[in-house]
Amino acid sequence: MMAYIAEFIGTMLLILLGDGVVANVTLNKSGMKGAGSIQITFAWGLAVMIPAFIFGAASGAHFNPALTIALAVDGSLSWGLVPGYIIAQFAGAFVGACLVYALFKDQFDATESAATKLGVFSTSPSVPNMGRNILSEAIGTFVLVFAIKGIAQVPGLAAGLDKFLVFGIIVSIGMSLGGLTGYAINPARDLGPRLAHAVLPIKGKGDSNWGYAPVVILGPVIGAVAAVLLYGVIPWA
Amino acid sequence: MMAYIAEFIGTMLLILLGDGVVANVTLNKSGMKGAGSIQITFAWGLAVMIPAFIFGAASGAHFNPALTIALAVDGSLSWGLVPGYIIAQFAGAFVGACLVYALFKDQFDATESAATKLGVFSTSPSVPNMGRNILSEAIGTFVLVFAIKGIAQVPGLAAGLDKFLVFGIIVSIGMSLGGLTGYAINPARDLGPRLAHAVLPIKGKGDSNWGYAPVVILGPVIGAVAAVLLYGVIPWA
Amino acid sequence: MMAYIAEFIGTMLLILLGDGVVANVTLNKSGMKGAGSIQITFAWGLAVMIPAFIFGAASGAHFNPALTIALAVDGSLSWGLVPGYIIAQFAGAFVGACLVYALFKDQFDATESAATKLGVFSTSPSVPNMGRNILSEAIGTFVLVFAIKGIAQVPGLAAGLDKFLVFGIIVSIGMSLGGLTGYAINPARDLGPRLAHAVLPIKGKGDSNWGYAPVVILGPVIGAVAAVLLYGVIPWA
Amino acid sequence: MMAYIAEFIGTMLLILLGDGVVANVTLNKSGMKGAGSIQITFAWGLAVMIPAFIFGAASGAHFNPALTIALAVDGSLSWGLVPGYIIAQFAGAFVGACLVYALFKDQFDATESAATKLGVFSTSPSVPNMGRNILSEAIGTFVLVFAIKGIAQVPGLAAGLDKFLVFGIIVSIGMSLGGLTGYAINPARDLGPRLAHAVLPIKGKGDSNWGYAPVVILGPVIGAVAAVLLYGVIPWA
Repeated sequence: MMAYIAEFIGTMLLILLGDGVVANVTLNKSGMKGAGSIQITFAWGLAVMIPAFIFGAASGAHFNPALTIALAVDGSLSWGLVPGYIIAQFAGAFVGACLVYALFKDQFDATESAATKLGVFSTSPSVPNMGRNILSEAIGTFVLVFAIKGIAQVPGLAAGLDKFLVFGIIVSIGMSLGGLTGYAINPARDLGPRLAHAVLPIKGKGDSNWGYAPVVILGPVIGAVAAVLLYGVIPWA
Repeated sequence: MMAYIAEFIGTMLLILLGDGVVANVTLNKSGMKGAGSIQITFAWGLAVMIPAFIFGAASGAHFNPALTIALAVDGSLSWGLVPGYIIAQFAGAFVGACLVYALFKDQFDATESAATKLGVFSTSPSVPNMGRNILSEAIGTFVLVFAIKGIAQVPGLAAGLDKFLVFGIIVSIGMSLGGLTGYAINPARDLGPRLAHAVLPIKGKGDSNWGYAPVVILGPVIGAVAAVLLYGVIPWA
Repeated sequence: MMAYIAEFIGTMLLILLGDGVVANVTLNKSGMKGAGSIQITFAWGLAVMIPAFIFGAASGAHFNPALTIALAVDGSLSWGLVPGYIIAQFAGAFVGACLVYALFKDQFDATESAATKLGVFSTSPSVPNMGRNILSEAIGTFVLVFAIKGIAQVPGLAAGLDKFLVFGIIVSIGMSLGGLTGYAINPARDLGPRLAHAVLPIKGKGDSNWGYAPVVILGPVIGAVAAVLLYGVIPWA
Repeated sequence: MMAYIAEFIGTMLLILLGDGVVANVTLNKSGMKGAGSIQITFAWGLAVMIPAFIFGAASGAHFNPALTIALAVDGSLSWGLVPGYIIAQFAGAFVGACLVYALFKDQFDATESAATKLGVFSTSPSVPNMGRNILSEAIGTFVLVFAIKGIAQVPGLAAGLDKFLVFGIIVSIGMSLGGLTGYAINPARDLGPRLAHAVLPIKGKGDSNWGYAPVVILGPVIGAVAAVLLYGVIPWA
């Protein structure tokens, strides 16, 4: 039960701080409008790191159905826990996105662009292309999961440093590949807030673009599973 | 007694470096004018981290009445120490702000905008809205205090890494939520310098906007207490 | 054998994330176009750090023929391993660059400048000057290798912190000297992707500028060997 | 003897990387021109951190006459070592500045402004005011030395983390106070390169502004000594 609570609150914090930075730097009348991709990528790294150190011991701090599935494929997590983890992750992401809306409502109201508003909640590709967008999400998630597994390769790693490595992994993927599809690399991170966008009474909002959902499900799951499989066949010795 | 000295000097350093960065990037004739929110948020994180490692052992390095009150509610701090801590924090913040004025006097004199001058000392909302501004400060402070408590969840954390986590927490709140109200998340950080603004002979200064004081008192205290209460009921195991 | 696999996959990741950030911030229709040198240098630091912690135990995580040669000169690596390391590094760099092209193909197609396209793959000098460009690469690589050797001078360094020092070294060289020649400081990092540029069917690509190859071979090798030789004669006690 | 070698090479690296970043972001025809104060302050932090971990065990990694003098006042360093430390620091700073000129000669030649050229080597105030400039340097150096002393207050600090704290201290002072006088906070850092500016055959260079020398000597020494004296009277328990 504690693991599910951890995944719920942790994913809520992740989205509060992650969707928060997008709102903070893209909505009109925000005091930090225009800060750009360095602030976005750095803050998303922190948005993962903070719940990761709080809830790492309680649940492993996945906050990501693709990672949860890959760790079950891998044998690191019991399949019986997978449904509860995933439900908690989507629920937490949904609630986190609602909090961002509650906080930034005046800024949402002051912003014209429907695309900017949706962009606070969910990702979108810079060039729509279903195949290549899935590839982008798959490779981004591959790097995420392969590197998380790879933390185990540092012998005697000082306790707590793994959280800073996770921060570095998230920032790296964002800074290097984020301009392609906005690096969802996590179905709950994208679809939980997308649902919030669909149901919240946001002034002047447009379509929630559900047609994009396959990209943020297939890409991350394929990439995450490929990562644990490759990791498993490497003769680490 | 040492704890009070630590809170006084530590909060003074916090404001010297924290209000300092705002002066440094917003006042005319500063060599770093215009550096923007990345420098502001990064430097505020360091402004907390530096006195935190110097004075962590001496007083717990609160530098924040909301945190002090929450840790007393929590049972982590004796209520008898609370008044002395809070007085030391406000006094340190006031002196730190006076130092910033002494250092940047030529830059203050070269700056027209009364709002920019007040902004070096104290926070203000991007969209004034008493209720939502209090919510913003409450949620920001909730994240601060919940995450500080959560550092205890990293088993065997290497000594000193907690200071880097604190840095990350402050930067995260600033980067993700700072465009709403300037993330005071600390009554002393806002009101000590606001008093300095009121009493110092600053050329062309405007009103000190004391009507905003309830936001930076109620928001942080509510958020901090909520954080320790939620933290207390989670079955961490 | 595992060491060669590690050098191959590690260098592939290095180039995926390193050439990736250049694509991400310089190509048209990338969502992060224009982020500039702070994002480039920070992300290159992470692009080295991430494979370094994954593959450090397996191969020493060189990913760089100049470092491999210098460590053989130094006696830290058997000369018999050098050819296999270097082949794996060039092969990994080539494959990593092909992945970047596969991911950013739509962005490459939307970009006019042949120089920008080549710049994703390989380095070029801001002022062409064979002698001074070699000096630039030699001094950059000297700092890299001297500092990597120097990590051994921190007594009892907490396990894993060396990876963060490597991150800091890469970012430092980029931020301080990168505007001269783009800090290849690694023949495989430059020539593997240059070969990919030459063979891939990139729309509107220009010349691959092979005449610059001596700079990124001679500079790094001279600098790296000089670093281990100087390190060796210092009476560290 | 090794301590002097360490101070010489360390200060040379410090200036190579520190003056290097100023050249890299301010001179014409540098590929990173215009990156601004975030890159400058971050890179100066790394410019100190890198020689600090290499030479910390050998000499204490002062690289700064004001720190050396303060630690002698403090009793942490024998007065007999002070002259040799200071000579090594100035000599290293001079050689480091010459290296920066050798690397960036084409960029210096392409730059018109004599003030920009001098700014690569040495600091200058944004508003000239001898008294307040000395105060700025004194307070910046006070923070530096007080915080370095304060590292000892973290019980059981994991080995190596002190280097990251030093990085944070340097970045903090630069980001928060650097717009006043360019934060020399170190007589050798300013005057060694100023001498290089005076003697090197730089095309179109102006005056070396030796009249400013008292600011970068008096300010740092006063601030550093004040820091160890205050540190000494605090009842740390």
